[in-house]
Amino acid sequence: MAVGNVEFPEMKQVSGIKLGTSNAGSKQTERDDILLVEMAEGATCAGVYTQNAFCAAPVHIARDHMLQNPRWLLINSGNANAGTGKQGMADAADCCKSLAAVVGGEASQVLPFSTGVIGENLPVEKIKAVLPQAVTALQQDNWNNAAHAIMTTDTFAKGATLVIEIDGSPVTITGISKGAGMIQPNMATMLGFVATDAKISQLLLQQCLSIAAEQSFNRITVDGDTSTNDACILMASGCSSAPEITQDSENYKIFENAVLSVCKRLAELIVRDGEGATKLMRIRVEQAADDAEAVKVGKTIAHSPLVKTAFFASDPNWGRILAAVGRSGIERMNLDNVEIYLEDVCIVKNGGRAESYTEEKGQQVMNREEILVRVVLARGNAVQEILSCDLSYDYVRINAEYRT
Amino acid sequence: MAVGNVEFPEMKQVSGIKLGTSNAGSKQTERDDILLVEMAEGATCAGVYTQNAFCAAPVHIARDHMLQNPRWLLINSGNANAGTGKQGMADAADCCKSLAAVVGGEASQVLPFSTGVIGENLPVEKIKAVLPQAVTALQQDNWNNAAHAIMTTDTFAKGATLVIEIDGSPVTITGISKGAGMIQPNMATMLGFVATDAKISQLLLQQCLSIAAEQSFNRITVDGDTSTNDACILMASGCSSAPEITQDSENYKIFENAVLSVCKRLAELIVRDGEGATKLMRIRVEQAADDAEAVKVGKTIAHSPLVKTAFFASDPNWGRILAAVGRSGIERMNLDNVEIYLEDVCIVKNGGRAESYTEEKGQQVMNREEILVRVVLARGNAVQEILSCDLSYDYVRINAEYRT
Repeated sequence: MAVGNVEFPEMKQVSGIKLGTSNAGSKQTERDDILLVEMAEGATCAGVYTQNAFCAAPVHIARDHMLQNPRWLLINSGNANAGTGKQGMADAADCCKSLAAVVGGEASQVLPFSTGVIGENLPVEKIKAVLPQAVTALQQDNWNNAAHAIMTTDTFAKGATLVIEIDGSPVTITGISKGAGMIQPNMATMLGFVATDAKISQLLLQQCLSIAAEQSFNRITVDGDTSTNDACILMASGCSSAPEITQDSENYKIFENAVLSVCKRLAELIVRDGEGATKLMRIRVEQAADDAEAVKVGKTIAHSPLVKTAFFASDPNWGRILAAVGRSGIERMNLDNVEIYLEDVCIVKNGGRAESYTEEKGQQVMNREEILVRVVLARGNAVQEILSCDLSYDYVRINAEYRT
Repeated sequence: MAVGNVEFPEMKQVSGIKLGTSNAGSKQTERDDILLVEMAEGATCAGVYTQNAFCAAPVHIARDHMLQNPRWLLINSGNANAGTGKQGMADAADCCKSLAAVVGGEASQVLPFSTGVIGENLPVEKIKAVLPQAVTALQQDNWNNAAHAIMTTDTFAKGATLVIEIDGSPVTITGISKGAGMIQPNMATMLGFVATDAKISQLLLQQCLSIAAEQSFNRITVDGDTSTNDACILMASGCSSAPEITQDSENYKIFENAVLSVCKRLAELIVRDGEGATKLMRIRVEQAADDAEAVKVGKTIAHSPLVKTAFFASDPNWGRILAAVGRSGIERMNLDNVEIYLEDVCIVKNGGRAESYTEEKGQQVMNREEILVRVVLARGNAVQEILSCDLSYDYVRINAEYRT
């Protein structure tokens, strides 16, 4: 059900970052469900997390441990350890402690992450039993296995990789993500793990990640539901021979753009794997008064079940797009100036259907698998793009059948 | 696909209010698609309208004409006359003028309403041709035909009727509504027409309608999409023998409650006819800090596609309800105090699954056709209830097939 090109790339290894997987048997498949990531000593690490008030136990702990020089990430898939109250906190802490004993570190150096069913207790003993295997499996060239181990309802593994030059030395940025449902990230998304061998301070790394996540994971939606477990982590091993990246430098700009590029690809892959998705909608809002307004209009279209079902049917039902723009809550909008396009085809102009529009032109665009919707507000200079997918029978099937 | 009891009641006639229908042939069915309502001279009339910025041409005109002693409502179904620009305004005005000529009134005394496909030009000539027939058909005992004439994707006609006593004299309140999709009214909903023979000033009637619509139509959602054409009209013919209803009187309270009761039933019927609906979700948020907060939490649950698909599957997937409460954007919520119930079954307590909860208890509730979800926030005394329905395969089918 993947939309478009979702091939897993040949992942560039990141010096100083090792990955190992093992199988605790908490998923219904035979796939590994435990991923362990080890960072070289001296690495820096940054994170952004879900804004859901009911955030899961591991997110609480990861946020705390982030400030204590973390060296390991421990991720399990199949169980979210969310809505599990005090027991959930104890379980996540127990896993950290157990891993610390195996690798010879402190529990506070372990960042735990979970993804899967909400409300079931974590199968702690099963997880602890296979931690040594994950440790044994640690190696740099293991991104493919890692991407598979964190999958839940995902239909394919998601990866992105890039090499840039910093003062003539190569710096690698490689990342993986997972997610297909409960996707409307807020400050971070589902799970995303990105690593680089750049040398960069924790503070600057955090700034870079916050900016990149805002413009990538926070610009996608599948169903408008923000998960309890979203997290995106950016690790920098410092093992590259390139000089340290410092604030306000040209190198920082290059680095930030590269991180953003990797995050954008990882985010886009999640939409391409949206539950039941058959089409990718790219909603670009132009000439908005500010970014917030552009995002608001874009997300209103992106979330509309009526727009999403019309896209599923390849129906150029532009009236539904117009209605969504109209209800997006922008004050004092002059509708006579608003223009809406499907790719290059103008559908709305002067407050109604564009005179040049024909159903045939609209149909030609709608038959495509990837469609750009452009909304031109004529209120300012801000531009933002939201990625979404259609709403199909399979979306209902997947979410009606999950768990039962 | 109606959920529960949706029987069309034996409608009490409203003295001074006549209804007539005819068929302009703008729908795909043989059903009449024109409804004309005539109010007795001296009647008062109030309205609430969609907040969608792209509001349809007839809504603009109805809002203007409302202040000019309206005597007639002209409603067509099958075409929304929305997204039709200047032509749409001219078309709606043309219909008003044409009707005025037939009935011998002023065009400004006609309130036009349209519902149906967005973005097609109104079939003005067809409508004008059958106006005389609608006038000929005018009679008090015609509510059943009227309710059918305004249907679009509705699967049944919606009516509610009530007789109260004002100082010993009977006062009747009778109304009809239509709507099944593009339903998240904001200030008003789809189309609702309520009539009474009470004597009451326009100002007080407007106050009464605004309060009633807020607590009825504005508390329902099917798909979260606010239509371009929503309107609810309350007409008071003044033909009852009861004394005039005045502000701050006991009689006003009785009257307001009765109007609210009729509006609530009309609103509930729309959810029971929600596109593809198999279940009715009644989401009651209790102990909220204020009404706005209660509505916010209730609507977040009500709109969640994950919650809605779980209800379709009769899956007691309480984690999805908890996640929706968590992402609803309430600041400084103490999750340890939040309790969530499916009917009487406590599912969430102390930040996680209630100890007393069993899957079997949850399943028993979820097998029902109508389900109460209670969220107790422990932050104040406000209570609000939102009505919603599930998300089924048929929702996708209906909206993917509409138009094409």
